[in-house]
Amino acid sequence: MPTLRGNCLMGQSGGPTAVINASICGVIQEAMKHPEIEGIYGAQHGILGVLEENLIDLRRADPKEIELLKSTPAAALGSIRHKLPRPEEGPSEYERIFQVFDAQNIRHFFYAGGNDSMDTINKLSAYAAKVGYELRAIGIPKTVDNDLAGIDHCPGYGSVAKHIAAITMGVGLDMQSVHLTDPVVIMEVMGRNAGWMTASSALARRLDGDAPNLIYVPEAPWDRARFLDDVKRTHAEHGWCFIAASVGTKDESGEYLATQKGDFATDAFGHVQLGGVGLFLESLVRGELGLKTRLVRLGPAERVAMHFASLTDRDEAYQLGAFAVRSAIEGVTAKMVSLERTSSDPYRCDLTYTDLDVVANEEKLIPRQWLNGAGNDVTQDFLDYARPLIQGEVPTPIENGLPRYARLREVPVGKKLPAWGG
Amino acid sequence: MPTLRGNCLMGQSGGPTAVINASICGVIQEAMKHPEIEGIYGAQHGILGVLEENLIDLRRADPKEIELLKSTPAAALGSIRHKLPRPEEGPSEYERIFQVFDAQNIRHFFYAGGNDSMDTINKLSAYAAKVGYELRAIGIPKTVDNDLAGIDHCPGYGSVAKHIAAITMGVGLDMQSVHLTDPVVIMEVMGRNAGWMTASSALARRLDGDAPNLIYVPEAPWDRARFLDDVKRTHAEHGWCFIAASVGTKDESGEYLATQKGDFATDAFGHVQLGGVGLFLESLVRGELGLKTRLVRLGPAERVAMHFASLTDRDEAYQLGAFAVRSAIEGVTAKMVSLERTSSDPYRCDLTYTDLDVVANEEKLIPRQWLNGAGNDVTQDFLDYARPLIQGEVPTPIENGLPRYARLREVPVGKKLPAWGG
Repeated sequence: MPTLRGNCLMGQSGGPTAVINASICGVIQEAMKHPEIEGIYGAQHGILGVLEENLIDLRRADPKEIELLKSTPAAALGSIRHKLPRPEEGPSEYERIFQVFDAQNIRHFFYAGGNDSMDTINKLSAYAAKVGYELRAIGIPKTVDNDLAGIDHCPGYGSVAKHIAAITMGVGLDMQSVHLTDPVVIMEVMGRNAGWMTASSALARRLDGDAPNLIYVPEAPWDRARFLDDVKRTHAEHGWCFIAASVGTKDESGEYLATQKGDFATDAFGHVQLGGVGLFLESLVRGELGLKTRLVRLGPAERVAMHFASLTDRDEAYQLGAFAVRSAIEGVTAKMVSLERTSSDPYRCDLTYTDLDVVANEEKLIPRQWLNGAGNDVTQDFLDYARPLIQGEVPTPIENGLPRYARLREVPVGKKLPAWGG
Repeated sequence: MPTLRGNCLMGQSGGPTAVINASICGVIQEAMKHPEIEGIYGAQHGILGVLEENLIDLRRADPKEIELLKSTPAAALGSIRHKLPRPEEGPSEYERIFQVFDAQNIRHFFYAGGNDSMDTINKLSAYAAKVGYELRAIGIPKTVDNDLAGIDHCPGYGSVAKHIAAITMGVGLDMQSVHLTDPVVIMEVMGRNAGWMTASSALARRLDGDAPNLIYVPEAPWDRARFLDDVKRTHAEHGWCFIAASVGTKDESGEYLATQKGDFATDAFGHVQLGGVGLFLESLVRGELGLKTRLVRLGPAERVAMHFASLTDRDEAYQLGAFAVRSAIEGVTAKMVSLERTSSDPYRCDLTYTDLDVVANEEKLIPRQWLNGAGNDVTQDFLDYARPLIQGEVPTPIENGLPRYARLREVPVGKKLPAWGG
């Protein structure tokens, strides 16, 4: 494959994770090793930064801050949710992006994100081929949801799983301590279609009766009578009940619990409250069973807990970033770098590639056989899958009692084009 | 002071913290050193365990598990909320407690808890003196709320402050990453009358614009128009807004925000939803300013984060437990062991005592001068007070990717009395 000299550009997209910056660090530190790569640029807020030509020069960032990206959560370059239109529907975005690529001599493009980001890489690669612009574009997977197809697990998932399990363990002990007064805990976990995050709470169990006692995910239809029975039985047996439920838990008819009982699921302005599954279940348990409840709703706090992130996850995120660069140098393009598990015990994942079509258009849900028959728990298969992903802790530099996260000094790359009117 | 031989009993009461077990560990390990103390017993679920004579023999617990209490959150002996009646109102409880003390030859009693627990120690001490039962009873302070009078700060607070600050820092970075789509974060923090926990979020700030941007606590009356103006201005300046608000935030008339807007603050059964300050502020920001929001509500997850607890806090909790035992051996009774700060820089706290009356009947709020004039932030005085309390991290033994918390094998102490009928 002929050497392709030029500048490289990277961006981040979608919801942040604890380790998406580790992938970016892998891209930057690997890029530094290759003389073919001249400028190393970051797009601010993903594809929006490309459209607006808001690029920063990462060669001029402090190497110590770059290194700190390995232990910094959230998206240091800024993220965005933006789905590219198809070229025939929105040609101006494509024209602009390639004007910027051309003006800035971008020849390697790395985009860390989920389905939409892989769709972006897919569309840009096809467009580049069509217009004859020489570009090597590679997607780097990340998502706490773990719902990407064509990869064993997504970077970002191991850390959120570890954090959710640790919180479950702590809150579970708390519940056991105070169960005579507050016997039921409901933990609402992110995840609209896929229950991977909620399921990870199961890793917290060590002894019989430990939290979580019940797990509800979108993959298994929820039933009101069964739920009340589950809670009643668990409480009778142990004196407490810890419930982990996905935001996207649905009943048999496919309706989200979060939008049921309209009278309390709307706010003062009549807007439907999203993510109200916890409140809904709380009202059922209080109202129908007369038990006291406590609600935990971590929300975005789930995905940023670098103070207890998985080292396995962080290292894989970094390796995928570095592997993307090596692959591009070798001529690979229009692929997502990926992980293929070759063994669970001992755990081993190999670096590989996945076709972007697969990732862009599919969603990986928990296999039904990894959930029990009653649809209120996971099976051993899930635990065997998830346990290796939470191993090890990321060392976090501390300053004055709190993590010292990276702060990139944003040295802009000079703009070569007039402002974008899009 | 004459030597008082006999058994010692300890219990835990109120809401758990990350370090209340460290205090119990301090009691146990110190008690082991003193030959005057024969049996070392734990009451299950606090004073309820005394009434029901449910005691466990801590000399027969595995010393390794006892040591692990130093890094185990929640209340390992079980906790309870129970306010003793006055002796003239409920003599049977007192009679029963002292029957149990006498039957089990309890001569040293240590109770870790908040106001109500200090009230319990106070009442039992007075009753012991009245009936001529020789008892040395000492309270060990704990509460995440930090609202106990007569002590510089409560064990448990430093760890919850550190955790809240770390979550604020992470969620703040997350918000900055995605502020183009989700610009406002509302974090609801426990605390009905005292805003200490919410205020600790301010420790997270390192650069201008960092989270939290606005802080609302019960000590400063909240005003709707000012609030909307605060959020609007912050969003205009930075492009985002992180709001930390106490569950107990009140308006000028003293009404809790959580109970306002009855149409959405009641659940499907018409019950008022408690802890709804986050939902209330969310609906205001969405409805009045048209900004997108994210809600974080850690609930009991705030207080159990041993995976990022303060070493300073943990060590003080341990020392107070050990000091309580040494004090009792020396003849001290009817006191709460306490902390007196002699210097903030370098930080130094001395072990001392506080009268139980002071603790039982007062509530320590944030001084008004530690809040800014607008009532939406803390001042430097607060930061200087709180910063030393979050220093250091508790080393947590890890097993299979998650903390290895203590599991006391519960070896019961033989009952000597018939079952309690109360």
